[in-house]
Amino acid sequence: MKYSAKIEVSLKPGHSNPEGETTARLLKELGYTVETVDVSKVYTVTLNASSATDARAVVEEMSKRLLVNPTKDDYTISIVEQ
Amino acid sequence: MKYSAKIEVSLKPGHSNPEGETTARLLKELGYTVETVDVSKVYTVTLNASSATDARAVVEEMSKRLLVNPTKDDYTISIVEQ
Repeated sequence: MKYSAKIEVSLKPGHSNPEGETTARLLKELGYTVETVDVSKVYTVTLNASSATDARAVVEEMSKRLLVNPTKDDYTISIVEQ
Repeated sequence: MKYSAKIEVSLKPGHSNPEGETTARLLKELGYTVETVDVSKVYTVTLNASSATDARAVVEEMSKRLLVNPTKDDYTISIVEQ
């Protein structure tokens, strides 16, 4: 079966987030009263797998091998059958 | 009240997606049978507003003014009260 996996990768708390800080500053300069801006990245991967459990295991592995830096990143995975 | 707004910005269909294509190629080289990879960006903005409707209107405006390029990007907004 075909699955769509979303892997959202964000910086762990305490890590410097220059893109978010710059975006917050620019929004304030435009007159918006924002508090904080965080920026994360979402990979949407379509793949074939025999079950959602199997798809999640494969995506967990590819996240650790390629998509995520475990030193600085947090990540969440969600799987949807297509 | 305080709200957390998520703005997910992705490329419109048909636009070149070099980061996704490179990620898909690398995953294939690692032995995974993925079909496609799309990459999008999520801004999580915390802001004060009088209601969720008001928060959404403000975030819609800041998206159009700063976060989104309407020529090439699609975007979705979700608002959660904190």
